Amino acid sequence: MASSLSPPEVPMELHRLNRDKLLNSLRDHLSISSRPNHGFVFLQGGEERTRYCTDHTELFRQESYFAYLFGVREPGFYGALDVASGNSILFVPRLPADYAVWLGEIKPLSYFKERYMVSMVYYTDEITKVLHEQYQGQGRKPLLYLLHGLNTDSNNYSKPAEFEGIEKFEMDMNTLHPILTECRVLKSDLELALIQFANDISSEAHVEVMRNAKVGMKEYQLESMFLHHTYMFGGCRHCSYTCICATGDNSAVLHYGHAAAPNDRTLQDGDMALLDMGAEFHFYGSDITNSFPVNGKFTRDQSLIYNAVLDAHNAVISSMKPGVCWVDMHKLAEKIILEALKKGGLLIGDINAMISERLGAMFMPHGLGHLLGIDTHDPGGYLKGAERPKELGLRSLRTSRELLEGMVITVEPGCYFIDAVLVPAMENSKTSRFFDHEQISRFRGFGGVRIESDVYVTSRGCVNMTKCPREIKDIEAVMAGAAWPIKRTPIPFENGESR
Amino acid sequence: MASSLSPPEVPMELHRLNRDKLLNSLRDHLSISSRPNHGFVFLQGGEERTRYCTDHTELFRQESYFAYLFGVREPGFYGALDVASGNSILFVPRLPADYAVWLGEIKPLSYFKERYMVSMVYYTDEITKVLHEQYQGQGRKPLLYLLHGLNTDSNNYSKPAEFEGIEKFEMDMNTLHPILTECRVLKSDLELALIQFANDISSEAHVEVMRNAKVGMKEYQLESMFLHHTYMFGGCRHCSYTCICATGDNSAVLHYGHAAAPNDRTLQDGDMALLDMGAEFHFYGSDITNSFPVNGKFTRDQSLIYNAVLDAHNAVISSMKPGVCWVDMHKLAEKIILEALKKGGLLIGDINAMISERLGAMFMPHGLGHLLGIDTHDPGGYLKGAERPKELGLRSLRTSRELLEGMVITVEPGCYFIDAVLVPAMENSKTSRFFDHEQISRFRGFGGVRIESDVYVTSRGCVNMTKCPREIKDIEAVMAGAAWPIKRTPIPFENGESR
Repeated sequence: MASSLSPPEVPMELHRLNRDKLLNSLRDHLSISSRPNHGFVFLQGGEERTRYCTDHTELFRQESYFAYLFGVREPGFYGALDVASGNSILFVPRLPADYAVWLGEIKPLSYFKERYMVSMVYYTDEITKVLHEQYQGQGRKPLLYLLHGLNTDSNNYSKPAEFEGIEKFEMDMNTLHPILTECRVLKSDLELALIQFANDISSEAHVEVMRNAKVGMKEYQLESMFLHHTYMFGGCRHCSYTCICATGDNSAVLHYGHAAAPNDRTLQDGDMALLDMGAEFHFYGSDITNSFPVNGKFTRDQSLIYNAVLDAHNAVISSMKPGVCWVDMHKLAEKIILEALKKGGLLIGDINAMISERLGAMFMPHGLGHLLGIDTHDPGGYLKGAERPKELGLRSLRTSRELLEGMVITVEPGCYFIDAVLVPAMENSKTSRFFDHEQISRFRGFGGVRIESDVYVTSRGCVNMTKCPREIKDIEAVMAGAAWPIKRTPIPFENGESR
Repeated sequence: MASSLSPPEVPMELHRLNRDKLLNSLRDHLSISSRPNHGFVFLQGGEERTRYCTDHTELFRQESYFAYLFGVREPGFYGALDVASGNSILFVPRLPADYAVWLGEIKPLSYFKERYMVSMVYYTDEITKVLHEQYQGQGRKPLLYLLHGLNTDSNNYSKPAEFEGIEKFEMDMNTLHPILTECRVLKSDLELALIQFANDISSEAHVEVMRNAKVGMKEYQLESMFLHHTYMFGGCRHCSYTCICATGDNSAVLHYGHAAAPNDRTLQDGDMALLDMGAEFHFYGSDITNSFPVNGKFTRDQSLIYNAVLDAHNAVISSMKPGVCWVDMHKLAEKIILEALKKGGLLIGDINAMISERLGAMFMPHGLGHLLGIDTHDPGGYLKGAERPKELGLRSLRTSRELLEGMVITVEPGCYFIDAVLVPAMENSKTSRFFDHEQISRFRGFGGVRIESDVYVTSRGCVNMTKCPREIKDIEAVMAGAAWPIKRTPIPFENGESR
């Protein structure tokens, strides 16, 4: 196992630019609504957690909004942006003396100031004092813009910062969340560079796994190879999400791989594998799915389903550009898959009639794709007040927005044979007539195919950041041992330039 | 990379035996205290968690007491033991229909009954009804023995079960925790077999890492190799704790490797490496440390410190048997290390005088070892009412108990050069005279050495379950490419026998 890649230097300037972007957006908003231009954006970073009642410490991963603005890897921080001056302030926990013995050097405040490129650094027990001193507004109590808002994927609310003395401040809980979320939706060049590296190393790891997958292995061995490649050669300690290593019938379980379905099946001759795995590099993620036959050769049926999904994947990417509605892209993918299934003899009848009965959702119950960034399901898919589509399939979409330049979005059409979905549809009087029941029955136990790339929207079109082999001939060649070199996309900051 | 090992079948009988053991202990206790022999032991399993406000699901790992009694890998369960009848009852969450599409087959109750070898299985919304029906006591309200007690490593309390309708029960919060904890302290043969496998695969992975470590690598690449080996060949998805891959000066940071000190140093010629890494197999853990020079050859100074620690490690293991007090073992290790440092010219003066000034704690600030099992720091180190030693070093001990047959305990002496500890000790008028300041100064930046094995106490002595090369000549040979085959210890249940 080897790699042509190595982890790039992380540009902390990225987070300074993120902060500037937020301050500009917030000031614009305040100016439009004729509100005074003062107060502090104030966020609480994540805390380290122990497992249940024990002292087993779980590996800390920073909260994503805090990571976006400050890039801090340590737990227990707070951060503030002074809206008037633009100053950035980090508040660092005061560590006990024996930290040096157990957990490492107690770094001086100057270390954090330099590392995270902020204007000032203080201890967390100084928050009230410092913010009162720095405040340039008129009121008796300084104003804090706290983060409170809905995550439309989880339906959970972000937790606004809490600290001792917070009652000595005015609090605004509504302004910050939508503005900061929208900043995250549109990626800067430096952000794109990190997502690109996460894609490069993950693409290479996928190729490595593809080449080493063998009948008789366990699914989790594929996961282990992926994790090792991305950590060993990419320095990626975290994954964007738990690896989905589904083979055979398991590939019809969309989020397979969790603790109750832990990638523990043995690979069998004739299986399709569906591997949905992506590494995270300095908080920025990737999200990539490959589907291939574990024995290295596609059968006719496997080719039929695979190419249906590949055609959908390619057609969407060809159509993507600013202004295109994501719901239309989902429908385009559905239509291409239905057409292929009809051509392959699995479906019968008029495609438009199938579409109006939402037949596409019987084969692809999930949405076509989602925003990607510091979270795998990056926030901002539904703007405040936007409603989810109600139709079957479409209602699973994590965004219904029009594409904008700078968005990174996954394109992940799939075609699955899920008994819990297909059996009712085949029995339903409205949809039964579309199925060739005999042909479909051949695909019982087939599982499913998903092809997923990470795509960013440019001013005139889009760029696929994922570099895996996609054509059947390329996959078969790679699995037979052919080379598939992955060239690292040059990263702007490495030459000291910004795109 | 290859392995002679493969994951054994997991015997669910192990958890049935754990339940029987608890019931016997609890009944004995009730009988001695003339309390009625009825009611239910009632535990809540762990819940899956998402990261902050997002839908990013963290990989679930069962709560350890629940894992001990039921071996359940899925989240959201409850479990009961009927004290009178001995019946075991699992309560399973009722999953929504679309679980089948997203997360996998919705398994029937019979699946869980068979898999987990329990008497009955119901849904979690039936807890109140079922327990009232099953109750064989006299009171109007059935009695629940809930888990509430102090974890003496974390100082946190276990969280007693909560469910809708709990007010229809009497609750006993005091009886269960000490009895169940003591059951966990003394391992059964089947438990030992799993800890042995975790040791076998982790020992092999340590050898693999040792052999592949090279100057110029990053510390996290050693972690990646370890994780890969234990998952790929041992099926170990979890580690017992975050890997500590410390080289150079970092090896003097006892719990290095966490998010704020993330194994990111580059290995340099002349460094010692201290690798503290252990895999977990079906909840049962291992905890192993190796120390070696990254260039494969010990210098004279490195040999001096290494052999001091190895002698302490070996002397302790030679002395361990039931009835031996763990505090005495700690003192034995300290004494051997001090003697070696004196012989090596770093210390001057009378060993007993050093001991009474607690000089050992200046070189080994942590405890000699801790109970090991489903938690890395397994509970039960201090029985209720037992006080921690107050002396420097000794107060870091996670247990001060006498050894009992069936305990598994780590033996992990260490010798570190920690500025934050040594500088004050060398300036202190009481301890300054013991140091040869010039000699000691040679070890600034040396880091530290730890050697850690997992040992179980037998009726007449003890057995070292860890199989890594320990002698300098063996380590140098392995690093130069010599074979170090690890034979799997036969596991009793594989022949259908129990030891």
